[in-house]
Amino acid sequence: MTLTYSYDTLFSFAYAVFRALSCSEEDARLATQVLLSADLRGIDSHGIARLSGYVRLWEAKRVAACPEIRVLHETPSTATVDGGSGLGLVVAPKAMQIAIDKAKAVGSGWVSVQNSNHFGIAGYHALMALEHDMIGIALTNASPLVAPTFSVERLLGTNPICVAVPAGAEPPFVADMATTTAANGKLEILQRKNGVAPLGWIQDKNGHGATDPHLLKAGGALLPLGGDREHGSHKGYALGAVVDILSAVLSGANYGPWVPPFPAYVPMPTGMPGKGIGHFFGALRIDAFRPADDFKDHMDNWIRRFRSARTVEGQERVLIPGDPEREMEVIRRQTGIPLLGPVVDDLAYLSEKFGIPVPVPLP
Amino acid sequence: MTLTYSYDTLFSFAYAVFRALSCSEEDARLATQVLLSADLRGIDSHGIARLSGYVRLWEAKRVAACPEIRVLHETPSTATVDGGSGLGLVVAPKAMQIAIDKAKAVGSGWVSVQNSNHFGIAGYHALMALEHDMIGIALTNASPLVAPTFSVERLLGTNPICVAVPAGAEPPFVADMATTTAANGKLEILQRKNGVAPLGWIQDKNGHGATDPHLLKAGGALLPLGGDREHGSHKGYALGAVVDILSAVLSGANYGPWVPPFPAYVPMPTGMPGKGIGHFFGALRIDAFRPADDFKDHMDNWIRRFRSARTVEGQERVLIPGDPEREMEVIRRQTGIPLLGPVVDDLAYLSEKFGIPVPVPLP
Repeated sequence: MTLTYSYDTLFSFAYAVFRALSCSEEDARLATQVLLSADLRGIDSHGIARLSGYVRLWEAKRVAACPEIRVLHETPSTATVDGGSGLGLVVAPKAMQIAIDKAKAVGSGWVSVQNSNHFGIAGYHALMALEHDMIGIALTNASPLVAPTFSVERLLGTNPICVAVPAGAEPPFVADMATTTAANGKLEILQRKNGVAPLGWIQDKNGHGATDPHLLKAGGALLPLGGDREHGSHKGYALGAVVDILSAVLSGANYGPWVPPFPAYVPMPTGMPGKGIGHFFGALRIDAFRPADDFKDHMDNWIRRFRSARTVEGQERVLIPGDPEREMEVIRRQTGIPLLGPVVDDLAYLSEKFGIPVPVPLP
Repeated sequence: MTLTYSYDTLFSFAYAVFRALSCSEEDARLATQVLLSADLRGIDSHGIARLSGYVRLWEAKRVAACPEIRVLHETPSTATVDGGSGLGLVVAPKAMQIAIDKAKAVGSGWVSVQNSNHFGIAGYHALMALEHDMIGIALTNASPLVAPTFSVERLLGTNPICVAVPAGAEPPFVADMATTTAANGKLEILQRKNGVAPLGWIQDKNGHGATDPHLLKAGGALLPLGGDREHGSHKGYALGAVVDILSAVLSGANYGPWVPPFPAYVPMPTGMPGKGIGHFFGALRIDAFRPADDFKDHMDNWIRRFRSARTVEGQERVLIPGDPEREMEVIRRQTGIPLLGPVVDDLAYLSEKFGIPVPVPLP
């Protein structure tokens, strides 16, 4: 069962929930914007489907609604930020803004964040750079679901990388990807359908390639981009590791197997070496390298050449990173955001819990 | 047939060849160091095997032996460098040094380079940051061998990414990887042996997955990390694209299908939008984020935890990125560098051409 809601309806509802957690008006608005940007862009696993999860973290006192966000250390082009155990949805855009401000001043800005929580989609934060004619970068670590090459243990999160690049007449280039073969959301869909995963997505508890998506909950693991050693999984592992190091070893957050879990009912790891989850943000001012208009003309040329490449039979065109999400956003702003039954139930639960009117689906 | 040479023997020979091209003593030494770092680290395709190729580029006047390397534009944390059409082996470490100097001053340094040539292994340049307690990053684009997802055309190079991170008691973390499933060097080995490539490494001229390595020279292409869409090739494509954009669209070098070829006999592309090949370098000062000793303690902890993870049956340990190359370097410094027959012949050709004594192999 799927019901469809307008963006504004879901915005009002999520905003009211964040206000009920005692977020300030400004923070509630920001958190809602970040959260729903995932639903708009079609990354349903990171959108309003997670709202009840955030509430449970707040109930478990793992998330502070009114965090004190502090700069612990800085240089003209860098900063380390303590997120005050706040919602990543709020901490992340504020940290990205610091990176942007530093780039305005000295050409580039780089901010590593400790003591934060899940920050929604990396894309939201990286995209903030575009209106300033900057390249935006956003990374985060996450709780361990991924086994490095040759490992049976899960030691890394799906640790996404987003790089957003402005263009001129063409829409921006936006690469936003988990460093695994397949995002965890795709596995959740297969689990729900009792489907079969392609070989290269997961391994079983003994580290053998597997196709049953339920094995992920029986000691198995997601695989790094590449899948197995012969297909370059050591590269996906290295990329996930770089994200972990920049986000957490550099900031003083937890890393590797010690990253706190998203579900509030999962116990915290023992012997945690840092604080909360870590993120890393970058902003590179285009005109710190060459005039922005020159750059954008060449990005347009780049995009047009790639988009018009001769395709494999059966494919209409070569996609530019960011195309699918941008096209989805146009559709969902027009026709609404579809939510699956369990998500609708979650919203009803939150409605009752906080005495907020239940959102009304589109007819 | 393989002959083995000491590092010093090959150093003297390559140095003499670069001097014969009229490189300065300093530049010849630097070029030789960079070139042979590939042989030491076991990346044979990028080492002295390429020396005759550099000479042919010089003969074709595509490489300047005494380039004027200029900063075209800069801010406190960024610079754009014109490599003066010089050897990438010389331009790249000089540009990386600018990034390091800027990081000393303002916390981070980022340098995009136009008008350069092939720079050897990315690892050499990124590793320069380590002795300064910085994280080093080196990227370069390269001539088009790789087909983006759904494309029949080759539009990207193998566009490597290297990230080098200092540790304390443990050796550094060094991820140095092509953004393809398999490096081109592996395909060259298979071509020589008439071997079979695993599915996911290459496609044929119609864009179908293929296993005959010779198809690469018959309109085929290397595949981005991931191999096919189902296994995340759009992510490998996006990573290669990011490398291309930072290295070339940002600097004013050639990008995509217009990157000049390494073999001097291959005609230059028409309608080139920039100058030469592009690189991108970054240096992040650790203590611009947290005290370097704290960071290194946590890197040691990170490395030990990953290295001691429970392994898949048949594997001794989980590798840390950089382990294989570092171990190879220890061996080759002790027992010498093996060169295949065609490479030995190349050196004999250069010996005769420039009147330099032919290098003497180890007994």
